[in-house]
Amino acid sequence: MPFIKKHMKHKIGILNGPNLGQLGKREPSIYGSQTLAELEAVVKLEADKLGIEVECYQTNHEGALIDTIEEWTGKVIGVVMNPGGFTHTSVALRDAIAGSGLRVIEVHISNVYKREEFRHKSLTAGVCEGVIGGLGFKGYLLAMQYLLEVEKKK
Amino acid sequence: MPFIKKHMKHKIGILNGPNLGQLGKREPSIYGSQTLAELEAVVKLEADKLGIEVECYQTNHEGALIDTIEEWTGKVIGVVMNPGGFTHTSVALRDAIAGSGLRVIEVHISNVYKREEFRHKSLTAGVCEGVIGGLGFKGYLLAMQYLLEVEKKK
Amino acid sequence: MPFIKKHMKHKIGILNGPNLGQLGKREPSIYGSQTLAELEAVVKLEADKLGIEVECYQTNHEGALIDTIEEWTGKVIGVVMNPGGFTHTSVALRDAIAGSGLRVIEVHISNVYKREEFRHKSLTAGVCEGVIGGLGFKGYLLAMQYLLEVEKKK
Amino acid sequence: MPFIKKHMKHKIGILNGPNLGQLGKREPSIYGSQTLAELEAVVKLEADKLGIEVECYQTNHEGALIDTIEEWTGKVIGVVMNPGGFTHTSVALRDAIAGSGLRVIEVHISNVYKREEFRHKSLTAGVCEGVIGGLGFKGYLLAMQYLLEVEKKK
Amino acid sequence: MPFIKKHMKHKIGILNGPNLGQLGKREPSIYGSQTLAELEAVVKLEADKLGIEVECYQTNHEGALIDTIEEWTGKVIGVVMNPGGFTHTSVALRDAIAGSGLRVIEVHISNVYKREEFRHKSLTAGVCEGVIGGLGFKGYLLAMQYLLEVEKKK
Amino acid sequence: MPFIKKHMKHKIGILNGPNLGQLGKREPSIYGSQTLAELEAVVKLEADKLGIEVECYQTNHEGALIDTIEEWTGKVIGVVMNPGGFTHTSVALRDAIAGSGLRVIEVHISNVYKREEFRHKSLTAGVCEGVIGGLGFKGYLLAMQYLLEVEKKK
Amino acid sequence: MPFIKKHMKHKIGILNGPNLGQLGKREPSIYGSQTLAELEAVVKLEADKLGIEVECYQTNHEGALIDTIEEWTGKVIGVVMNPGGFTHTSVALRDAIAGSGLRVIEVHISNVYKREEFRHKSLTAGVCEGVIGGLGFKGYLLAMQYLLEVEKKK
Amino acid sequence: MPFIKKHMKHKIGILNGPNLGQLGKREPSIYGSQTLAELEAVVKLEADKLGIEVECYQTNHEGALIDTIEEWTGKVIGVVMNPGGFTHTSVALRDAIAGSGLRVIEVHISNVYKREEFRHKSLTAGVCEGVIGGLGFKGYLLAMQYLLEVEKKK
Amino acid sequence: MPFIKKHMKHKIGILNGPNLGQLGKREPSIYGSQTLAELEAVVKLEADKLGIEVECYQTNHEGALIDTIEEWTGKVIGVVMNPGGFTHTSVALRDAIAGSGLRVIEVHISNVYKREEFRHKSLTAGVCEGVIGGLGFKGYLLAMQYLLEVEKKK
Amino acid sequence: MPFIKKHMKHKIGILNGPNLGQLGKREPSIYGSQTLAELEAVVKLEADKLGIEVECYQTNHEGALIDTIEEWTGKVIGVVMNPGGFTHTSVALRDAIAGSGLRVIEVHISNVYKREEFRHKSLTAGVCEGVIGGLGFKGYLLAMQYLLEVEKKK
Amino acid sequence: MPFIKKHMKHKIGILNGPNLGQLGKREPSIYGSQTLAELEAVVKLEADKLGIEVECYQTNHEGALIDTIEEWTGKVIGVVMNPGGFTHTSVALRDAIAGSGLRVIEVHISNVYKREEFRHKSLTAGVCEGVIGGLGFKGYLLAMQYLLEVEKKK
Amino acid sequence: MPFIKKHMKHKIGILNGPNLGQLGKREPSIYGSQTLAELEAVVKLEADKLGIEVECYQTNHEGALIDTIEEWTGKVIGVVMNPGGFTHTSVALRDAIAGSGLRVIEVHISNVYKREEFRHKSLTAGVCEGVIGGLGFKGYLLAMQYLLEVEKKK
Repeated sequence: MPFIKKHMKHKIGILNGPNLGQLGKREPSIYGSQTLAELEAVVKLEADKLGIEVECYQTNHEGALIDTIEEWTGKVIGVVMNPGGFTHTSVALRDAIAGSGLRVIEVHISNVYKREEFRHKSLTAGVCEGVIGGLGFKGYLLAMQYLLEVEKKK
Repeated sequence: MPFIKKHMKHKIGILNGPNLGQLGKREPSIYGSQTLAELEAVVKLEADKLGIEVECYQTNHEGALIDTIEEWTGKVIGVVMNPGGFTHTSVALRDAIAGSGLRVIEVHISNVYKREEFRHKSLTAGVCEGVIGGLGFKGYLLAMQYLLEVEKKK
Repeated sequence: MPFIKKHMKHKIGILNGPNLGQLGKREPSIYGSQTLAELEAVVKLEADKLGIEVECYQTNHEGALIDTIEEWTGKVIGVVMNPGGFTHTSVALRDAIAGSGLRVIEVHISNVYKREEFRHKSLTAGVCEGVIGGLGFKGYLLAMQYLLEVEKKK
Repeated sequence: MPFIKKHMKHKIGILNGPNLGQLGKREPSIYGSQTLAELEAVVKLEADKLGIEVECYQTNHEGALIDTIEEWTGKVIGVVMNPGGFTHTSVALRDAIAGSGLRVIEVHISNVYKREEFRHKSLTAGVCEGVIGGLGFKGYLLAMQYLLEVEKKK
Repeated sequence: MPFIKKHMKHKIGILNGPNLGQLGKREPSIYGSQTLAELEAVVKLEADKLGIEVECYQTNHEGALIDTIEEWTGKVIGVVMNPGGFTHTSVALRDAIAGSGLRVIEVHISNVYKREEFRHKSLTAGVCEGVIGGLGFKGYLLAMQYLLEVEKKK
Repeated sequence: MPFIKKHMKHKIGILNGPNLGQLGKREPSIYGSQTLAELEAVVKLEADKLGIEVECYQTNHEGALIDTIEEWTGKVIGVVMNPGGFTHTSVALRDAIAGSGLRVIEVHISNVYKREEFRHKSLTAGVCEGVIGGLGFKGYLLAMQYLLEVEKKK
Repeated sequence: MPFIKKHMKHKIGILNGPNLGQLGKREPSIYGSQTLAELEAVVKLEADKLGIEVECYQTNHEGALIDTIEEWTGKVIGVVMNPGGFTHTSVALRDAIAGSGLRVIEVHISNVYKREEFRHKSLTAGVCEGVIGGLGFKGYLLAMQYLLEVEKKK
Repeated sequence: MPFIKKHMKHKIGILNGPNLGQLGKREPSIYGSQTLAELEAVVKLEADKLGIEVECYQTNHEGALIDTIEEWTGKVIGVVMNPGGFTHTSVALRDAIAGSGLRVIEVHISNVYKREEFRHKSLTAGVCEGVIGGLGFKGYLLAMQYLLEVEKKK
Repeated sequence: MPFIKKHMKHKIGILNGPNLGQLGKREPSIYGSQTLAELEAVVKLEADKLGIEVECYQTNHEGALIDTIEEWTGKVIGVVMNPGGFTHTSVALRDAIAGSGLRVIEVHISNVYKREEFRHKSLTAGVCEGVIGGLGFKGYLLAMQYLLEVEKKK
Repeated sequence: MPFIKKHMKHKIGILNGPNLGQLGKREPSIYGSQTLAELEAVVKLEADKLGIEVECYQTNHEGALIDTIEEWTGKVIGVVMNPGGFTHTSVALRDAIAGSGLRVIEVHISNVYKREEFRHKSLTAGVCEGVIGGLGFKGYLLAMQYLLEVEKKK
Repeated sequence: MPFIKKHMKHKIGILNGPNLGQLGKREPSIYGSQTLAELEAVVKLEADKLGIEVECYQTNHEGALIDTIEEWTGKVIGVVMNPGGFTHTSVALRDAIAGSGLRVIEVHISNVYKREEFRHKSLTAGVCEGVIGGLGFKGYLLAMQYLLEVEKKK
Repeated sequence: MPFIKKHMKHKIGILNGPNLGQLGKREPSIYGSQTLAELEAVVKLEADKLGIEVECYQTNHEGALIDTIEEWTGKVIGVVMNPGGFTHTSVALRDAIAGSGLRVIEVHISNVYKREEFRHKSLTAGVCEGVIGGLGFKGYLLAMQYLLEVEKKK
């Protein structure tokens, strides 16, 4: 996970958690038929349009998500994070976000409120700046727009 | 609530529920210091940029929210709705949205997951297309962008 | 809501709550394809057959349901009420029924026990005389029959 | 429980569960002072009026209720069932009704919502067509009317 | 709801919610046999004794309670509010009180702790200054005394 | 289950529910090593000492317990009942006892509060006169003493 | 705790439970900076104004509160009681009040609904005449007024 | 609490908790009209009949109950204890009984299962030998019989 | 239920509970289209292959399941039991299994974890040796294999 | 984890989760005294008997379980999975299985229903084909048999 | 409880709650076989080693614990408290600690997490500085060390 | 993670879980301003003082914590473990500790009872020897002392 430290442009981290590597293959009726590669391509296109850099990372490992949050701290203006199943179970990830001081937007591709009740509860959302759910890939792009705008206002 | 039926442009409904008429005056540490008028001005500016029309309505009455959902059915391409306190208590509003077939995006100015636990649960979100929370006024604008984009893809 | 006070015939109130104005349009797989107008026509036909009068009222406003309960007190032999979503959330409506001393039959078009769990609980049923659910429009007619029969036995 | 298979008239099963054999003797302030024999007489009178046959059966045995549901399958146009205390505790009876494909109307003489909280929940209602509660013996008659009417519409 | 803005005397708002218009008629064993008019007369007598003005308002509509809270903000030294059934269900009313910054005393005529368990919980009390329950009409008068005394100490 | 109707002596029913036929064989560390026959012998000895008759019945069938309650009504001065596992699950048995008007003492051989938590709750105890638990076979004898003494005081 | 039995004036008992001896020292941001002695002085001043006697007692011992309830029974026209932490945990104190037949007003200095959730529930309030909370020392005085007024109406 | 250490006869402790000093005066519809002195007289009569000694103690203080359990350890063959309201709330009393190794029979005069739901749960019963409830004063006597019989079998 | 006591071969009991007599007819999308007779034929075929005997019994009666458990005790090397709906509600059946000392394998044709939440909990599984669910008729055969293998290892 | 892609034989994946590497060493009273190596040897023997290949993998890492599920998708006819402690806590693993479309049999060596209550709930079982628990190592072999049989029927 | 006010050395209070007077006698498998006197001797030895004074107090009375907290306020540098069973039930003790401003370390001899679930919850721990559990008498000594070290750092 | 097997000195493992690598940087108001390196330095200093060795390991990965528990088994006299967020969610870690037979002391830097309610519950504490919370870095040192002392007593 190399990182160019002295960047001129603003940088945003795009962090995808467990099972998001299977996008397009996994339950397309819920998540759509586009792959993670396509998601990351769309994200990069948006980044170009906004004049910013993005760093994309996907992992199925809770610990690796936390490692990445630590690593990105102080290097990005914000993180767009889809914690997948860890949304509902990870106190450790929650602590990592709270501890980092990073501005994180939690994104879900599907609308979790339409699914099993255990998905309605989010352990991580309470330490994020905001949440976008149910808007498909577009949710990532809207979150990027938001992060940039807030950064510019500072 | 007059409505010009034969519109050329796409129209989006902006529906604000109880206490949102007090924006700017009410708990500014949570909701910011801008008023509802200012929110609606920002929304209209965005509508101009997107080349669409908006209809804005605010009410403290649950029944009036339902009446409006009924009235807007078939006339707008979608609704950006902030149901305020009814988010957590109104089965009737939930039924109205589900019954209307309207594409609704639920928006909250603050991040409800940072507040009292009774605010973490949403009765209405399960029948909306998606949810945006914690992004301030910007959440309304992102929801409008999303609704227009989906409409154009049809 | 004018009311002819000195009526010769027995009168029954038919009170429909939120979203029932959308009958026929709203989720026909659950509620059927007939409209509120058609329901009220069927109800009036039955009233003629039974030799009674009916007064029909529908509103999306919780307060207006309570106002109507107050207004009808002492003027009708009973009320057939479908409180819609307020069934599950309104202590105020419950109090209004209990306070009025009216004989009320709670009716639901669909069988609430086949739907989301939050619909299984009724706040209002405990202060009604009885409940009929899942029998479609026919439930209203059976309730009317019942109310008349009890009245005649007095 | 002999059964005349080749019947000309429509037939409805009337199934009463535990303790209903004690009607009239048991807690008359709740269930009234009429006996099961009187209930069955009233039911038969109504059957004559409607031009149908009825088969009445009462038992205190959960297994016998299930046996009867099995036996009646394919032989009656519907069942009016008062499962007594099994309403709140029997998954097995629920499975029997669901598996039979029979149209069953659940009837309660008293309004369960006015009684102990454990009576507010029904395990069986979710697999019945509908529920009538609190209308005394009249509830059985209304359920019979409903079953016949639906049958005729087929 | 006209309001004389430039008053010399201190003014207190007396806000009664759903079903309180039926005082005296509704469940007298719980609420006593005096009417709302009699309550308001007693309140006005007390106001005269204290040398203050009162504005009384009763409504069955949740939205109208919120509208009134908004309207009274900045015009009264405090509000004596009996939210009736909304006490237990209205997040929106809670938000209105919290947002207004008004000093509100929640009053209940009966002792809610002697009644159904769902009445023991108050959504609104947490944003009021205090609560008085079970002391009949006298509770309103004591609340008025308190509000005036606090105002004078400022 | 023959019954000598014209008895001179007082009679008490001893009703044992599911699995009590296996006493002595089943989990002796919990229930002791004496059999049901031995329990009934001890009970009869006590009856002789008290100068009363007893009728003993054991069944694994919930319905048969209810049938027996019905049959014994009006024939015995009271019932000593050990409902076994039905204690915790049977609303129907509860209804049977409540409806019979019989004076019933619920007895458990072991102390249910020392066992799994689902055994701490009793559905039937609320309609019995009293409960004796944890005193082994002796509990039956104490209950018999009590029933006779109350009868004599009448 | 000496008691002058043959008093001419009406007498009210003022009963303060655990930790109220630390008033003024303990968490002044919640309970204010005045001491128990100051509270009792204010209470006595009010008693003089009302022309009644008061007996004040404070203890940290649950049993001593119950002893006092027993001792005061039949000797005072009512009790103003602040049970402190026992409000939320003491079934024994609840039983003492219920058993005494005394008219008790439960008073809390702070508004318990603004504090930890375990403080929202009161075991004792259900057997008191009423509850006053959140009005500081003034709550005691209002309760005294109420008790005297009710006594005079008898 | 003097104690004759070298006794020839078996001794049983009779321990009554909070509010039992008010027997006869307190809620006679629940607890009967006989006083604690009468209960203790009946208990002593029974002791004479059984040829044993009893030591009776009543207190409203949880700590004093525990002190007594400690003091009686090794001196009595068992304890008949009615912990009153502490039954449902005292872990400390539970620990005292468990730690003492005493054979304790928990007795309740009324049938707690017929009363408020918080009385159905017993914290102390799980460390007692058994429980007798709902049999009035007679429950104490039956418990004494049981304790003696078990002692003799040793 | 005749039983050849002196068998040479090992014998396994196959016990099917409520509604399993309707296999093939009842909800084939869940339970498949094969009947109980076909299940028992398959089971017997497997028994022949394994060189053992089987005894098959199906009943809708909870008591009859317990009777059978009692009867089979000491006569079979183990039981393959599908308790149907009693899985989730029967403490009595649980006690019967625990008391018998029989090695029981609980089998479910469908995967209960894919169905209503009340089916996820099993009262009986905790006293069985193991559980097989979701493998259709094959589950019975695998359980038979297991029971024989364990028997042979003894 | 190399994988021979063009295999002639059917292949089954054997996936063991956290702590299963300690089999034989860890709590032998619960899990037996055989090691993971011995389990895998038994599994391979069975595979030879069935004429299939197996791939065995054990890991303590939740992410690695998900990675393996992804990697095996399309390459094996099914998976025998023992998720250890993740059974009860991992939404992410549940999503991985659901998303893969793999036929998975969940296996537990011990009977979880005999252990702590938090082990009775399975997050993963609802997306598996079936569950086998409490049958020791034999459970793995039965699951393999089942998977092969289903494959052959296709 | 005399107290030498002008002490030169730092002083720590050692406060033991209900049943700790029975240490050594009570359930030695849980609490060890050493007595309270031995605990206090060990504590004093440690005090000598640390060059501080200790004051030891044990009581079974909740009120006396609160009295002691009040008395020690301002006189000790901290308290090592084992509240015994009051840990789980006493809001009043919690309030006393919070109100005193004392630095309190809660100590449990046994590991409460290995015992009944109602012992896992602590009402008092939330107002203490820290908690030490499961380390036997050693826990008291470690707490003393900690308190002294913090005091020296001031 | 190399390990010198033949050590002369006693060795203790210091295991820190997720986010503890960010000590000093992360929420210093909760965790203090010292870093993990400083914690490990303090730990080593203490080890020198006690004459023992320590092995320190920190990881954000649940699986790596379990791997380490396995690796250290048999090599250390005990483990001081701070499982961070996994304390509240990891059954797998709990199983690892239980299975290892290691003596583990659970340490938390902050007092979890002062924080969110989901932090009050510990899944791991029930299989540890004891718990120390809220005493900052000092908690680690006290745990080391304890482990050494117990070892020496063996």
